Amino acid sequence: MSTIESSAPPRGMRDFLPADVALRDWATDVILKTYESFGFTRIETPALENINLLRRAEGGENLQLIFEVLKRGDKLERELSTGQPKREGLADLGLRFDLTVPLVRFYAQNQSTLPNPLKAIQIGSVWRAESPQAGRFRQFTQCDIDIFGIKNELAEMELLQATAEALRELGFKNFTIRINDRRILSALAEYCGFDPGRVDNVFITLDKLDKIGEDGVRKELHSAGHEQGAIDKMMTVVTSLQKTKNFAEARNALPEELQKNEALEPLANVIKDLTEQGSGSYDITFDPTLVRGMGYYTGQIFEVSCPGYTYSIAGGGRYDKMVGKFSGRDVPACGFSIGFERIITVLTDKGFKPPNAAAKIALICNPDQDDLTSVFSTASRMRDKGLIVSVQPRKKDMRKQLDALMVQGFTSFAFFKNNGEELEIKQLNQSP
Amino acid sequence: MSTIESSAPPRGMRDFLPADVALRDWATDVILKTYESFGFTRIETPALENINLLRRAEGGENLQLIFEVLKRGDKLERELSTGQPKREGLADLGLRFDLTVPLVRFYAQNQSTLPNPLKAIQIGSVWRAESPQAGRFRQFTQCDIDIFGIKNELAEMELLQATAEALRELGFKNFTIRINDRRILSALAEYCGFDPGRVDNVFITLDKLDKIGEDGVRKELHSAGHEQGAIDKMMTVVTSLQKTKNFAEARNALPEELQKNEALEPLANVIKDLTEQGSGSYDITFDPTLVRGMGYYTGQIFEVSCPGYTYSIAGGGRYDKMVGKFSGRDVPACGFSIGFERIITVLTDKGFKPPNAAAKIALICNPDQDDLTSVFSTASRMRDKGLIVSVQPRKKDMRKQLDALMVQGFTSFAFFKNNGEELEIKQLNQSP
Repeated sequence: MSTIESSAPPRGMRDFLPADVALRDWATDVILKTYESFGFTRIETPALENINLLRRAEGGENLQLIFEVLKRGDKLERELSTGQPKREGLADLGLRFDLTVPLVRFYAQNQSTLPNPLKAIQIGSVWRAESPQAGRFRQFTQCDIDIFGIKNELAEMELLQATAEALRELGFKNFTIRINDRRILSALAEYCGFDPGRVDNVFITLDKLDKIGEDGVRKELHSAGHEQGAIDKMMTVVTSLQKTKNFAEARNALPEELQKNEALEPLANVIKDLTEQGSGSYDITFDPTLVRGMGYYTGQIFEVSCPGYTYSIAGGGRYDKMVGKFSGRDVPACGFSIGFERIITVLTDKGFKPPNAAAKIALICNPDQDDLTSVFSTASRMRDKGLIVSVQPRKKDMRKQLDALMVQGFTSFAFFKNNGEELEIKQLNQSP
Repeated sequence: MSTIESSAPPRGMRDFLPADVALRDWATDVILKTYESFGFTRIETPALENINLLRRAEGGENLQLIFEVLKRGDKLERELSTGQPKREGLADLGLRFDLTVPLVRFYAQNQSTLPNPLKAIQIGSVWRAESPQAGRFRQFTQCDIDIFGIKNELAEMELLQATAEALRELGFKNFTIRINDRRILSALAEYCGFDPGRVDNVFITLDKLDKIGEDGVRKELHSAGHEQGAIDKMMTVVTSLQKTKNFAEARNALPEELQKNEALEPLANVIKDLTEQGSGSYDITFDPTLVRGMGYYTGQIFEVSCPGYTYSIAGGGRYDKMVGKFSGRDVPACGFSIGFERIITVLTDKGFKPPNAAAKIALICNPDQDDLTSVFSTASRMRDKGLIVSVQPRKKDMRKQLDALMVQGFTSFAFFKNNGEELEIKQLNQSP
């Protein structure tokens, strides 16, 4: 094996060193504690799912990115012996590409023994065979909360509050929750006269409004062959909505045909509640151009934007029709996902360091000279007082050893004097 | 899709419900906190490794159990178009089957930026395509600590103390650490006159002594074609060693040729230290028949036995020659692994329930009637006092709802009276 190449992790995947894990664990812990305080509980599913489940799932372009697991033993031999084996027949399992598909399967499988409503936390890895590029990884962490079994906007309110609270605890300020409802988008498309079979294409373009501007959206819809009358009608509505200052004004600015839409009252309630709970530390705003990619949303959809960053740091929505595709019976479902890797990027950009949980002492000994049993007993007594104590053999260059300990976050060091009779403890100067 | 079959997790893998995760998270947290108090820090590697790395690793029969990941895109097409594709060419990645192989790769890759000594914690999933059977899973959690960079028995002492302390914190009592050294086994094989090329086979059989007895071992070694003289010589030594009461006696009972073995002094030190630290709450004992399966061990090896269970609950040893196979330069290394799934089995058998972290209140509301903003503000104020508060919509059958809340671990419930002006909190009777 050539040394350097072969010891790298696989392409697009990462090793996490102690300092990396410390930051990730701190963020995980903050999020988890916050979600738990809202009564959510953690559930777990396997990293692998049956390949047919993943291939048939609603996952958009993620279905092209599944890491598929080769069949084994006789089953594989049978495929290979056909002479013309096909990709489809070679795999029987695949790594999950998100946490929503496994959650829906989990719910269908365990519904009878699960709490109702189920308020689930999932924090775990997902895998996508993307072309590696800056900030995009082939294994990354997702961090989701979902509520199954609540059909009204109580679910959206709890998800939004819990996520906003987690973001606040992580140190995020002045972020904005943007909110919309798929039912309003559908009604708008119908009102404008778009071809009902091509509504998804309209919204994928509308979603780009903040990136490509009004002219850009018009051009793209035109090139895609949508009727000019429908395009004009939609842009007129969207432009007038964007000029409104709050949701009450936006409601009035809607065409009369849309003002009775069933989605408006719940949306008003959620916006009122979150405005109240945010009380200035975060905002919520109606965004008629918010679409979100996944085809499975059926009601409210939401994203969180953070000042200074173009990407959203959290997103989610209601998907009431997904459990039914498994179990034959629809169950109301709503979820919100924090972009864990993005959070970590923002915290790293800020130079954030997680606080030490306890004083961390290196007990430096000389194994050839000190009585190790007495060294370890001393360490044990110090641990009983809540200290972190690492016994370390003394190195020749002690100055270098102490510098290295400081970098590792040690706050002090200790050693034995006078033939082991006296323990001396010294602070490590954290700013050398 | 047929409902029941398709919503099950893949064969040999498990869904974890809230109560399962609560127990697993509690155990993980206890282990992690203990290891951290000894100055170990967590590191993480990807679930996937390059397939050549895994196939060339020292993993014994685990190499036959790798879940291999199919190549993608052009690379796969090229393999399939050869007409006679072979298993070996179809995969480029594989799921890790243990945490040691990835750790060694990680160390070789990141050595220059890692602390020295490195005291690493790894808690994570591994995957093995075993034939599913009771208590054996295809995805399971391993929980390892390893020390890289300490060549003397200071490393063994710390690993043993930290693991013993974690087991104590998990509620285990009166367990026994069995310890041996591969160098003593090698010297014994040489002294007895076994074929040096077939020593591994001798030890695999010797390892079964407690299961198949002395006669069983003799028969198996005989059938395998080992020389009768060597078999007799070894059994005489082993039998006399087993009659000794402590390590000092065992040392004296060794053939004179073995009494100067370099492994004996460090072994004596470790046994002395752990006897002291255990101070009656656990034991350490020299076990000349302890072998452990993995071929990579080079020094001390250890296992923990728990009264009432035939399997060991932790195991490990020194493997000083593994990093060198990667980086060309040997680095002293020593590790200890807690059998996490076994620990969970024992705790479950005992009926152990993890303690509630905080009082857990269900704030029951009527979304059609109550002012939700005031409900959520109340919930938020209660959370500020450290309570877990889950807002839940009131169900028709409230008695049934309360019973279900109790099962989920809620300690009380609250609701609004007098048009939302008064909040009433009631205990949930935990023993109905």
